[in-house]
Amino acid sequence: MKTPLEIRLGIVGLGTVGQGVVELLEKHRGFFSRDLGFDFRIAAACAKEESALALVKDKGCLKTGDPLAVANHPDVDVFIELAGGEDGPKPWHEAALKSGKHVITANKALLAKHGVELFPLASKQSCFLLFEAAVGGGIPIIKSLQESLVANDIEGLACIINGTCNYILTQMARNKVSFADALAEAQRLGYAEANPSFDIDGMDSLHKVSLLASLAYGRYVDYRKLSVEGVRNISALDMQMAAELGYEVKLLGVVSETNGKILAAVYPALLERGHQLASVQGVLNAVYLKTSAAGPQLFTGAGAGRYPTASAVISDLVTLSRQMATGHPIPLNMDFFSADNAAELLSIDELETEFYLRLTTVDKPGVLSKVTGILGEAGISIRALSQKPEHDPANVPVIILTHAVKNAKVAHALRQIDALDVVSAPTRVIRFYK
Amino acid sequence: MKTPLEIRLGIVGLGTVGQGVVELLEKHRGFFSRDLGFDFRIAAACAKEESALALVKDKGCLKTGDPLAVANHPDVDVFIELAGGEDGPKPWHEAALKSGKHVITANKALLAKHGVELFPLASKQSCFLLFEAAVGGGIPIIKSLQESLVANDIEGLACIINGTCNYILTQMARNKVSFADALAEAQRLGYAEANPSFDIDGMDSLHKVSLLASLAYGRYVDYRKLSVEGVRNISALDMQMAAELGYEVKLLGVVSETNGKILAAVYPALLERGHQLASVQGVLNAVYLKTSAAGPQLFTGAGAGRYPTASAVISDLVTLSRQMATGHPIPLNMDFFSADNAAELLSIDELETEFYLRLTTVDKPGVLSKVTGILGEAGISIRALSQKPEHDPANVPVIILTHAVKNAKVAHALRQIDALDVVSAPTRVIRFYK
Repeated sequence: MKTPLEIRLGIVGLGTVGQGVVELLEKHRGFFSRDLGFDFRIAAACAKEESALALVKDKGCLKTGDPLAVANHPDVDVFIELAGGEDGPKPWHEAALKSGKHVITANKALLAKHGVELFPLASKQSCFLLFEAAVGGGIPIIKSLQESLVANDIEGLACIINGTCNYILTQMARNKVSFADALAEAQRLGYAEANPSFDIDGMDSLHKVSLLASLAYGRYVDYRKLSVEGVRNISALDMQMAAELGYEVKLLGVVSETNGKILAAVYPALLERGHQLASVQGVLNAVYLKTSAAGPQLFTGAGAGRYPTASAVISDLVTLSRQMATGHPIPLNMDFFSADNAAELLSIDELETEFYLRLTTVDKPGVLSKVTGILGEAGISIRALSQKPEHDPANVPVIILTHAVKNAKVAHALRQIDALDVVSAPTRVIRFYK
Repeated sequence: MKTPLEIRLGIVGLGTVGQGVVELLEKHRGFFSRDLGFDFRIAAACAKEESALALVKDKGCLKTGDPLAVANHPDVDVFIELAGGEDGPKPWHEAALKSGKHVITANKALLAKHGVELFPLASKQSCFLLFEAAVGGGIPIIKSLQESLVANDIEGLACIINGTCNYILTQMARNKVSFADALAEAQRLGYAEANPSFDIDGMDSLHKVSLLASLAYGRYVDYRKLSVEGVRNISALDMQMAAELGYEVKLLGVVSETNGKILAAVYPALLERGHQLASVQGVLNAVYLKTSAAGPQLFTGAGAGRYPTASAVISDLVTLSRQMATGHPIPLNMDFFSADNAAELLSIDELETEFYLRLTTVDKPGVLSKVTGILGEAGISIRALSQKPEHDPANVPVIILTHAVKNAKVAHALRQIDALDVVSAPTRVIRFYK
């Protein structure tokens, strides 16, 4: 029997995910050593709190509060960053890569913002920079895009990639509760942060979508140039209407390509109940790919949490170790993720789809005539319209479903509609997804 | 820019899948060369018909009708077997491995039957033997089990792994047609063979399930020791009853572990409509895993066909090439797939589940009393019972749903029930899956 290869790890961040990694490394130590041929040893660990460092039992491990001490540690082969934060960890990654260490991270915010510098640096240093854990938790979507679907063009992508939002929307649909109540429940259960904006306003989804879009199309997609809408404005009435129509409301990341240009965005969407993404409930994540050879592919699983994310980190660690074991590891080519190779983007104005519009109107004669007049002039064809009974005559909901039309036309019409004196609140928009 | 590494392929079998591989290699040649760094050249090809060989345009390619000429060809690095057949290709694989070639195949029948010799031979020769295309077509389930889920124990697996059966059952459910009519339609569309037994009686699913079970539990599971039932006996009435109860009927491969013993089997099962596997329709395949760290995972996609299967073959080819590029490729450890390491198996007698029983009875007084008497004596508790109106008094269907009970008890009771003179045809059994 061959001696296992020792791989020396430096871990920064021993919060939920970091603790999960330490636990799983310990739990499967025998399997990794005997069956895979790797002894993973934590040579350096960094955490804010000393109590967390006590978790690490590996002999001779440097325990520190200084991330750079780990990144620069001469006995570390693999730098694992699980601290989070979109800017703070950048110098640690740079230090690790410059000292020739491979890097594994779960930090989507960092990669979305600074990957355009970090991936080229990794490439220059002939180092791996792996991030399975950054998108979709334990779902092997990054590896599948990087390795399994190499003989495919990706023709489209739609994903449910934020468990907080999906939990809230699922609760609203199942229990007919308001957004505020569903959010409060999510916070009580630890599925939403005390300040939930990052999740519910879609930014977390946008970071992940930009990474998926970049991988799927082999060009750098900058999240700062993409359109994002969250779930804050979805009302109980919207959920009721969706149910009556036979639809589910999901916060989707959607990516497509037209004439070489990429359209990527995050927005709430109506999905017909038979659609495979419609049955993804609660905190689950899912990525749906239209591929040129392998056909439609759906990956569903736990998108966050201690062990799913730790599972993905260790998946990357083993991928990397298998290359290190050859003595001459060759990183996956991430050269496309660079400013020179930025994708040409299509604005969401160009997106053509069917729309659900919820107007809030004053109960006066002529309202519908004014509204439908504006839609007609904008070339927007109405598929269905219903005015809901409402006790408050100053806030009467009118639901309009349109035929497929470009987003720009709808935006233009809504600016006029929302300026009408008979319209008492901004019109809410949900797009359909097919 | 680095010179791409030339990888020389020998392909045996230029039918549907082989042609797909040749086409995709050609289509993505630029990407493979420029972005991945590999020039794939077909150095030898074998097909029964000369017309198929004409597809291969690679210069200097040996074109032959003799598979062994490819397996033994000195200029071939990777032997790709896409001919199929459970016994015939074995000597070709052996010759290829003995001459130090890596092997890629889509041949599940061969691996299920002879993998127990071929995997140890590959290991001895330090060669890869890769088979992503053998299970689930373009779905990256083999790679996910081998690489992505390494930090997980698999706690259970259920799969829809034969597109023919799933197409037939979907058609029966949607269009309320008989099994015979759905099969005829599947044959007309090319989804079922002229002799459909291999698919509809479950053997193809069983081959794949034995491979998945072996990978998931790290022990060799011999398909010849597993229980298999197909879909031939599912009636229109069964589908109607399932629909009324809110269930879908699927042919499932099911694997679980109890006290270190593996229970693996293929049988039709009733799945509640909300279950993620219930919405897998038509020729799609799906694999559902309960994992210890990453939670529940579902992979869905095209399970067969030219391009999905070819996509999986090329995925393996790139995985292998990335190792070859290091100059010192180290095969994935498949040592567990050996006769010394056979899994202890649990008989399906030990499976405890709820049952749907469809009895065919003669319309005489006392029938239900006799039947329920036997069930009661066997300790089988009835959850629901209904006798359906039927014009033919010699064939009156009685549907019985049981509470959870061991399979052995039901089998024992049904032997007695089917021997009753008031029972005019064998009772049909569908298990529930949760």
